Amino acid sequence: MSKLAVIALGGNALLRDNQAGTIEEQEANTTETLENIIFLLNEGYNLVLTHGNGPQVGNIVMQNDAGEQMYDIPQMPLDICVASTQGSIGYMIERCLRNVLRKHGIQRNVLSLISTVEVNPDDEAFNNPTKRTGRIYSKEQAEKLAESKGWIFKEENKQTTGFRRVVPSPQPIHIMNWEVIERNARAGTIVIATGGGGVPVYFDREGNMRPSEAVIDKDLASSMLASQIKANEFYILTDVAYVYADYKGANQKILEFLDYDDAVKYLDKGIFGEGSMAPKIKAALHFVGHGGEVSVITEAGKLEDKTYGSKITMEYDPNDLERQKKRVEN
Amino acid sequence: MSKLAVIALGGNALLRDNQAGTIEEQEANTTETLENIIFLLNEGYNLVLTHGNGPQVGNIVMQNDAGEQMYDIPQMPLDICVASTQGSIGYMIERCLRNVLRKHGIQRNVLSLISTVEVNPDDEAFNNPTKRTGRIYSKEQAEKLAESKGWIFKEENKQTTGFRRVVPSPQPIHIMNWEVIERNARAGTIVIATGGGGVPVYFDREGNMRPSEAVIDKDLASSMLASQIKANEFYILTDVAYVYADYKGANQKILEFLDYDDAVKYLDKGIFGEGSMAPKIKAALHFVGHGGEVSVITEAGKLEDKTYGSKITMEYDPNDLERQKKRVEN
Repeated sequence: MSKLAVIALGGNALLRDNQAGTIEEQEANTTETLENIIFLLNEGYNLVLTHGNGPQVGNIVMQNDAGEQMYDIPQMPLDICVASTQGSIGYMIERCLRNVLRKHGIQRNVLSLISTVEVNPDDEAFNNPTKRTGRIYSKEQAEKLAESKGWIFKEENKQTTGFRRVVPSPQPIHIMNWEVIERNARAGTIVIATGGGGVPVYFDREGNMRPSEAVIDKDLASSMLASQIKANEFYILTDVAYVYADYKGANQKILEFLDYDDAVKYLDKGIFGEGSMAPKIKAALHFVGHGGEVSVITEAGKLEDKTYGSKITMEYDPNDLERQKKRVEN
Repeated sequence: MSKLAVIALGGNALLRDNQAGTIEEQEANTTETLENIIFLLNEGYNLVLTHGNGPQVGNIVMQNDAGEQMYDIPQMPLDICVASTQGSIGYMIERCLRNVLRKHGIQRNVLSLISTVEVNPDDEAFNNPTKRTGRIYSKEQAEKLAESKGWIFKEENKQTTGFRRVVPSPQPIHIMNWEVIERNARAGTIVIATGGGGVPVYFDREGNMRPSEAVIDKDLASSMLASQIKANEFYILTDVAYVYADYKGANQKILEFLDYDDAVKYLDKGIFGEGSMAPKIKAALHFVGHGGEVSVITEAGKLEDKTYGSKITMEYDPNDLERQKKRVEN
C-alpha cells in the first residue's frame, strides 16, 4: 500500500513577509513550494496538503473593515473570513498544483475541500486570546478598532513597534469529514483540506453546530488530521531547514533527530520559541504520539533533499546507523 | 437506487434585496430555504446543492477595492473573489444544513467542495461583458473605477438609476471533479458544489489551467453538473413560484408544464426576461436535453408543496392525466 503523508504548508510557502501580497507573488511562491513535493509523488506517496492563512485572513478582516467604512457592507465574523480563505487559497493551490503535476507528467487528480474543525467551547483559550492576526496598527488605530469592534489588541515585541489584534486559539478536537479526505487521498487524489487550521465550530447542548470566533493553529489541526486519517508521515514546512536549540543564540544547535521524550523535555525547558517553533513541536509530537511514524519539520525549499529537516519519532531505531551517525555529528 | 437531484439555490434563497446582508440575515434565509428540501430527503433522494453568489461576490470585490484604498492591500482578481465566496457560502450552507438535518432527525453527512469550471477562452462572451455584478454606482463613481481598474460599466434600466460593473459570462463546458461530487452524493452525502457557477478557468495550449476574469451563470453551471453526474431531477429555486408567459403583463399566464419544443419556441419569441428567466429556461432545457427527467423552476419556499413550480420535460407523457388536467386549468 502507498504511504500516506500530510504536508502542512506554512505561511511562508504562500506569501512572504517582504511581499505586498499580490496574487502573482502568491502563485509564484506556491508553485515554487509545490515543486518540492514532486519527489514524494514520484516515490508513490499519497498526499494531503494543508495550509496556513495568517496574512490572507488578516487582509480579509481588514478589507471587511474598510468595506464597512467606505461602502456600508456589513463586516463578516471571523469564521466566515477563515472559510473565505479556504476558498481562495484552496483554489489557488489546486490550480498551481495541477500545473506543476502536468509539467512533471504526473497523472493525479486534485481536490479542495472546505473544512470545519470542532473545538471545545469551554477551551481556556477563549478566556485568553493569544493568536496575533492581521496587520500591525498604531496605538491610536488599535484603540479606535478596540472601541468600535470590541477587538482585543496586544503590543508587539521589542523588534516591532505597534499593536496587533489577538484572537483565541483553541485546541482542535475533531476534523470534520476526515473520512472523505482519507478515502480520496488513498485513492490517489491529492486533497487540499483544513486550510487555515479549519473553520472553528462547536456543538451546543442541543447538538447544533455553532461558529466559533477564533482561529485554530494550522499545524495542530494538520497533526490532528494526520492522526485521524492514519497517515504514515507528517511534514511541517516552515522558514527554517531544521529545529534548533537556542535558535539564533550563542549555543545554537541543529536538532536533526528528536525522539518523543527528548522533545517533551526540551519543550518543558522552553528552548523553542513560544509563538513559532513550540506549537510545531507540539503538533509533531501529537502525530507520533498517536501512531504516526515520523514528523518532519523543515524549510519548504529543502524538502526535496531528504538530508535536510528535523525528524521527530517516538524513539530512535538503534539499528539505524545513518541516523545515529548524523546525531553524533550534531 | 435512490434518485439523485441537483438543487440550485438562487441569490434570494441566501440574501434578499431589501436586506443589508449581515451574516445573521444570510443564515436565517438559508435555514428557511433548506427546510424546504427536507421532503426530498424523506423521499430518499440523494442531493447536490449549488448556490449563487451575486450579492456576496459583489461585496467582496468592493471590500477589496476599499481595502486597497484604505490599507494598501492588493486587490484580488475576480476568480479569487469567486473562490472566496465558495468558501464562505459553502461553509455557511453546510453549517445551517447540518442543523436543519439534526432538527429533523436525518442522518446524512454534508460536504462542501471548491469547484473550478472550464470555459472556452475564445467564448464570445469575453468580447461582450453582460453580467452585472457588485453595487450600483453614480456616474462619477463608475467613471473613477473604470479609469483606475479598467472595469466596464453599464447603465441600469429605467427603474433604477446608476451604473453597474459588467463582466463576461462565458458558457460552462466542464465541471471539474464532477466524479467526486457524484460518488459522494450517491453514497448519501449531501454535497455543496459549483458555488457561484464555479471558479472559471481555461486550459492554455500547453495544458495549464489558467484563471478567467469572468463569472459563470450559476444555473447553467448547475445544469451542466446535473447532466455530468446523470442526476434524475434538477431544481432551480428562484423568487417566483412559476415560469410565466408575459410576466407582469396584461396577459400573464402560468406555464406549469413546458416541453422542450414549446420552451424553445417561447425562448425564440423572447417571452422570458433576458437577464432573469431566460437563462433559467436555457439551463432547464440543457438538463432535459441531455437525458435528465425533469427540471423544476419554482420559489424556494414553495418547493415542499409539489403542486407549485413549473416542470420542464422533453415531452409530456400523454398518460399523465393529472398533468394534462392541470395544464388545461392554466
